[in-house]
Amino acid sequence: MAVALLGGLAVAPASQAEPKTPAVAYTPDGKLIYPKDYRSWIYLSSGMDMSYSDAPGAADHHMFDNVFVNREAYEAYQKTGTWPDKTIFVLEARMGQGRGSINKKGVYQADAMGREAHVKDTARFKSGWAFFPLNSDAPAPALAQTSQCNVCHEQHGAVDTTFVQFYPTLLPRAQEMRTLSAAYLADEEKDKATSR
Amino acid sequence: MAVALLGGLAVAPASQAEPKTPAVAYTPDGKLIYPKDYRSWIYLSSGMDMSYSDAPGAADHHMFDNVFVNREAYEAYQKTGTWPDKTIFVLEARMGQGRGSINKKGVYQADAMGREAHVKDTARFKSGWAFFPLNSDAPAPALAQTSQCNVCHEQHGAVDTTFVQFYPTLLPRAQEMRTLSAAYLADEEKDKATSR
Repeated sequence: MAVALLGGLAVAPASQAEPKTPAVAYTPDGKLIYPKDYRSWIYLSSGMDMSYSDAPGAADHHMFDNVFVNREAYEAYQKTGTWPDKTIFVLEARMGQGRGSINKKGVYQADAMGREAHVKDTARFKSGWAFFPLNSDAPAPALAQTSQCNVCHEQHGAVDTTFVQFYPTLLPRAQEMRTLSAAYLADEEKDKATSR
Repeated sequence: MAVALLGGLAVAPASQAEPKTPAVAYTPDGKLIYPKDYRSWIYLSSGMDMSYSDAPGAADHHMFDNVFVNREAYEAYQKTGTWPDKTIFVLEARMGQGRGSINKKGVYQADAMGREAHVKDTARFKSGWAFFPLNSDAPAPALAQTSQCNVCHEQHGAVDTTFVQFYPTLLPRAQEMRTLSAAYLADEEKDKATSR
């Protein structure tokens, strides 16, 4: 009966409304609260055994990296080609496994070996972004703004310090919206020059 | 004013309600309508260069497989350890790329090379499930119920003809809920016997 009084407006009971728990949340002392739902966010891509260094790797095993971003940030990116405040990426490392079940070749993903978050929060971090190694599901402190992660992402990230060059479904939008960083464009020019 | 008459129930205007477009939809002649939003579904896992055959591969390149499942089915699986009717998986194949940007080692994902859907619809398919190669975004016909895909998934899928053994976040739930298939459990026993 009450619904009829709304004059035809469709209403959803509160229990069906989307819960609005923010993906980025901190403890009072500034640690990042573990983003436990990240596997239900938007998947961006995976790499295997990637390295940004020419140094020989010690690994006697394969390792995958999966990257996820929170849904609100993904939706904003689709419109603008760049990241809004409170964007959060989670990078998840998983052991690669070869033979197992009926698999005869190649590698599939097994146990998670580590996680790291990359958060945009311009009011909180001088550069706008910070990295949080997530060694457990306990709240995690940020790396210093001068960390290797920060420096490399600032020097080589295709869009706003993020590695959009490795996310095949996102790169075209940055090209369309002309949001590629000067640093990335300079890297690409250098690559072209050396491969001539 | 009208809201107050609901006696404290929180209401959401219709425009904020989630649009309910079903993930599984067909044309009148039974072709699967291309599930264009699959990249916003739940990501299950990725493999690289996987093969279920011992035959030498011809590939002079690397290939990734990414697997997604519709959100409603994932939520049901979390409760029951198995798949509800109208479950749809999309497997996406992407070319692997080595050097590029600042990457020096390993492989990251580039262009999509193909897609296939696996759909549970017990009223429509004799075995309960069907495969649809998605060669474009046009509606796609199902493979015959006797296809190699059907046979292999029936003979080796860990849960209800699906390869949950390769989805590390899903397998523990099937173990807890005892929904692992007899075929899979027999495969595992055989593996144990041969590795003794």
